[in-house]
Amino acid sequence: MNNANSLYQYGTLAMLVPGLFEGTLPLKELLKHGDTGIGTGDGLDGELVILNGVAYQINGDGKVNELDDDFMVPFGDVHFASFEHLANVHALVKMEDLEEKVSSKLDWNNVFYAVKAHGTFKSVKTRSVHKQDKPYPTLVECAHKQNEFEAEDVEGTVIGYFSPQIFNGAAVGGFHLHFLADDKSVGGHLLDFEMVSGDIKVQKLDELVQKLPSSNDDFMKHDFSNDDIAGAIGEAE
Amino acid sequence: MNNANSLYQYGTLAMLVPGLFEGTLPLKELLKHGDTGIGTGDGLDGELVILNGVAYQINGDGKVNELDDDFMVPFGDVHFASFEHLANVHALVKMEDLEEKVSSKLDWNNVFYAVKAHGTFKSVKTRSVHKQDKPYPTLVECAHKQNEFEAEDVEGTVIGYFSPQIFNGAAVGGFHLHFLADDKSVGGHLLDFEMVSGDIKVQKLDELVQKLPSSNDDFMKHDFSNDDIAGAIGEAE
Repeated sequence: MNNANSLYQYGTLAMLVPGLFEGTLPLKELLKHGDTGIGTGDGLDGELVILNGVAYQINGDGKVNELDDDFMVPFGDVHFASFEHLANVHALVKMEDLEEKVSSKLDWNNVFYAVKAHGTFKSVKTRSVHKQDKPYPTLVECAHKQNEFEAEDVEGTVIGYFSPQIFNGAAVGGFHLHFLADDKSVGGHLLDFEMVSGDIKVQKLDELVQKLPSSNDDFMKHDFSNDDIAGAIGEAE
Repeated sequence: MNNANSLYQYGTLAMLVPGLFEGTLPLKELLKHGDTGIGTGDGLDGELVILNGVAYQINGDGKVNELDDDFMVPFGDVHFASFEHLANVHALVKMEDLEEKVSSKLDWNNVFYAVKAHGTFKSVKTRSVHKQDKPYPTLVECAHKQNEFEAEDVEGTVIGYFSPQIFNGAAVGGFHLHFLADDKSVGGHLLDFEMVSGDIKVQKLDELVQKLPSSNDDFMKHDFSNDDIAGAIGEAE
């Protein structure tokens, strides 16, 4: 049943744009489809990192919590880890350059793939947001309320996905990366980093299993035609 | 294994836009993921209709052929039929009005769904195209070479899918419908029809399994950034 080429996505990025943040899937259901991934909680309650089948939340204060099975998620991306080694890092590489290097080395721009980079980071800059209440604000309004966290000389893991541009809206076209420190001192949605040593692994995913929350009335009744989805993803993600 | 909520899509519409028409999946593999659906053949070789596990091709001459298991496809949408009755047709309804009626009655604009309408058609207008050779033309160039077929007073089946707008590019946002006459006298990609009696069935599909042809070099190496995907789908589909 475990397909190492398959990315399971619950919910869509487009859904988050107008503020459809309600958690509709328990974590234990999400974890049936992968042991590695990223996501967010009910009400956009923090940023999630899933490694080796264990899910962590980096909440709006930057605190890292291990999550219970019944934690509810509105959006998550998971897959079963079966990474291949791509490159070692020996000298300082910034986030943007790492993305560029991975992308040009792989030539996988038309499929999905997972990226995992573990090592030492001279600096890391992340963000997370506090749980929002109904009526939910929009994703862009939340982005303005987000908290940013910075850390120096930290060991940790970058984990996330590359999605082809035609899936921008369903997912984030391009890279969507989260971070978790080995000592759980910092994490979140990655804004920037400087990696100085470690290794970069990748996993090609030529199948997307896109599950939509069809039992959620707010989602089913929402009219997306006036939402600037690509614009909001560009601004907020 | 058979998930009645799942739409399996092999290839993307975006892929067809610049002319990536090479058939990379044998029909027998596609049929493992559904017994009902639509698609096209290697080199854009006709329009496919799959009903009850049997695949038919309407070729560029409008002739209907039952297909072998080893027929290769670049693009196909299939699911396992488990339709529910939506409405009966008692009076003349045009294609556009039927789409509008189905869409407004269901309120399923944010998920995928299958549509199957069987009955009597006062008129049917379809298209299909001859198999193209390499170097392949673009989808829009093919649309200009397509053959159109018209029939009157014919019994047959409309089969196809509705996809949410954020998946336009991966799929056809909105309706993508094919036709096959009961007596196999006519069929193809639907351009228009007037249905006078019969029934309309639908099946909600809240999961898309999107498989990409990652072993096809032409696909993997193509730069989609200059292709006007939405424009071409609007013009050609």
